[in-house]
Amino acid sequence: MSLYALIMAGGGGTRLWPLSRIDHPKQFVGLFGRRSLFQLAYDRIASLIPPARVFVVTGARYANLVHAELPDLPRENIIVEPEGRNTAPAVGLGALHIRRCDPEATMAVLTADHVIHKAAVFRDVLAAGAQVAAGGALVTLGVRPNAPNTGFGYIEQGESLGAVGDFEAYRVVRFTEKPDLETAERYVASGRYHWNSGMFVWRVERIMAEFARQQPALYAALRDIDAGLGAPDPRAALERVWRDIDPISIDYAIMEGARQVAVLPVDIGWRDVGSWDAVYAETAATPGENVMNGDGELLAVDTEGCLVHSDRLVAAVGLQNLVIVDTGDALLICPRERAQDVRQVVAQLRAAQRDEYL
Amino acid sequence: MSLYALIMAGGGGTRLWPLSRIDHPKQFVGLFGRRSLFQLAYDRIASLIPPARVFVVTGARYANLVHAELPDLPRENIIVEPEGRNTAPAVGLGALHIRRCDPEATMAVLTADHVIHKAAVFRDVLAAGAQVAAGGALVTLGVRPNAPNTGFGYIEQGESLGAVGDFEAYRVVRFTEKPDLETAERYVASGRYHWNSGMFVWRVERIMAEFARQQPALYAALRDIDAGLGAPDPRAALERVWRDIDPISIDYAIMEGARQVAVLPVDIGWRDVGSWDAVYAETAATPGENVMNGDGELLAVDTEGCLVHSDRLVAAVGLQNLVIVDTGDALLICPRERAQDVRQVVAQLRAAQRDEYL
Repeated sequence: MSLYALIMAGGGGTRLWPLSRIDHPKQFVGLFGRRSLFQLAYDRIASLIPPARVFVVTGARYANLVHAELPDLPRENIIVEPEGRNTAPAVGLGALHIRRCDPEATMAVLTADHVIHKAAVFRDVLAAGAQVAAGGALVTLGVRPNAPNTGFGYIEQGESLGAVGDFEAYRVVRFTEKPDLETAERYVASGRYHWNSGMFVWRVERIMAEFARQQPALYAALRDIDAGLGAPDPRAALERVWRDIDPISIDYAIMEGARQVAVLPVDIGWRDVGSWDAVYAETAATPGENVMNGDGELLAVDTEGCLVHSDRLVAAVGLQNLVIVDTGDALLICPRERAQDVRQVVAQLRAAQRDEYL
Repeated sequence: MSLYALIMAGGGGTRLWPLSRIDHPKQFVGLFGRRSLFQLAYDRIASLIPPARVFVVTGARYANLVHAELPDLPRENIIVEPEGRNTAPAVGLGALHIRRCDPEATMAVLTADHVIHKAAVFRDVLAAGAQVAAGGALVTLGVRPNAPNTGFGYIEQGESLGAVGDFEAYRVVRFTEKPDLETAERYVASGRYHWNSGMFVWRVERIMAEFARQQPALYAALRDIDAGLGAPDPRAALERVWRDIDPISIDYAIMEGARQVAVLPVDIGWRDVGSWDAVYAETAATPGENVMNGDGELLAVDTEGCLVHSDRLVAAVGLQNLVIVDTGDALLICPRERAQDVRQVVAQLRAAQRDEYL
């Protein structure tokens, strides 16, 4: 059994505007230094999975970015979706490519827009996940929650499926939607609920079987695409068929109704960095510290708790807990506690059709 | 009697960094729109004094700026100081040039870094000042204070010298230094103290006589320069002599010890715009309004009382009373109430010899 990776590198990230743009979304941006989240996602597994077995599924507008950021990745391992159709079709498309390489493959579906602090543990998790998946399970990685976060879906664990290395796998009772705070508190207190990380491990044969069973229309489309991959113009079928595929998430399309679903609760230092406040929390070594990213310079007078991203000189006088993001054409200034409201800025720009800023 | 103007356009303005720079100080910047304070100072008197009788004294590094901003001004009316020597030598140098045009001239010494809202009243003031000056007085324009400002020197009025048009002239009892708050309150309550505007009207012959009497060394230098102005290389004497002139202000060198000093208390909507907070106060039509200057655009969400100067898109979320000044190479962010502390930024840059930002 060989382990493959499918890194999901679609779009998104409006709350990290103006650094994250439609043409250059957050996972391709050096939020924490020179390497982007996408590059870090690749770096993290490099010692476990060789480049030839790493696939990336992304949109047409990002294919060149992916290549530029990962020049070592074989060009044919960049799988380009004609248009975004949510995660289920993307996973199916990736699985097709991996199956063509190795029908016996096990694949890990990985996200590219999270921080994972414990890379070594994470690699152990993937190896353990592959072991569990060998028995036929669809394995989902459940992040042990450290707070009643209402921004994630939760996975409820059932009976133990036994220990695998340092980990223990459980049957999944159910996937839940994002809960309200009270429910989230109950989940966390129970110890049986884990954050849905959107990362999975399974045998490619098993996931294709679930597509066939649960999503016959999508499966038929994938079969047409697969047939086309052998043709003289391998993208023709893809381009033709993709348009008519309905967008649907992998959770909804497959996981919620799948047989033999297991969860591997893990503690890998996983962080969602969906907002500037989260970026600050990730970067500040001590609370109240000022964080300067980019090639610029911060001249701070009586200023604390600020996150600054700029390639210029930024003089901050008497500021507390502000986010200051300075890009070529746009400047954002916002209290850290209002970081979620950056969405409103993007919504207003969209409503005004100011595409040059999106 | 012909009325001439001498516009003082030296350097200065560190509190308006990063827009105001050594090479492009605040009076040459479009703080309030397209026209700079310097251009507005010229525009304001244009209907009273023709360009041929307007002189500008400025530093070598600003001569081209002056010409570019006032293309209608005869080039020979731009008087270039080799180096800054405070106001007394600058006034003396201007007076020399004006005397060469017309020994009977009356000259108004005008600043270029203030706002004067009532331009028509101001022209009437200059005409009245010239009438008072005709009798031999050195006339200083005293701005009637509307607050106990501790940032200005005050002029104490004495006995009335009689009405001149809508105004009344008074003998000056004394010039004071910047007072403490208690003293300033007493000054304002008395009704007999006025802000020293740094603007004057006098006959050129009279001011030269005061230079001769009170500042013999400076007067001798001015005489050498004057003799040189008729030579084949009119700047040679200036360049040679200027270096050894001691810097001294016109108040200290001449006004405090002069004979026949009069003050014309005026209400001309005079405003010092030495800090970003003052610029905001000048520009906001209603309290709490956001002010956008520059060619950029402000996208404000729950934001009020901010002054933004930028040529880009600035998205402000949840901000109150901030100054945001965005220039090509530097960005300043500062609460309006801390606007005085921009000086600290400039001081730090100077200490670090970051001349590129000064």
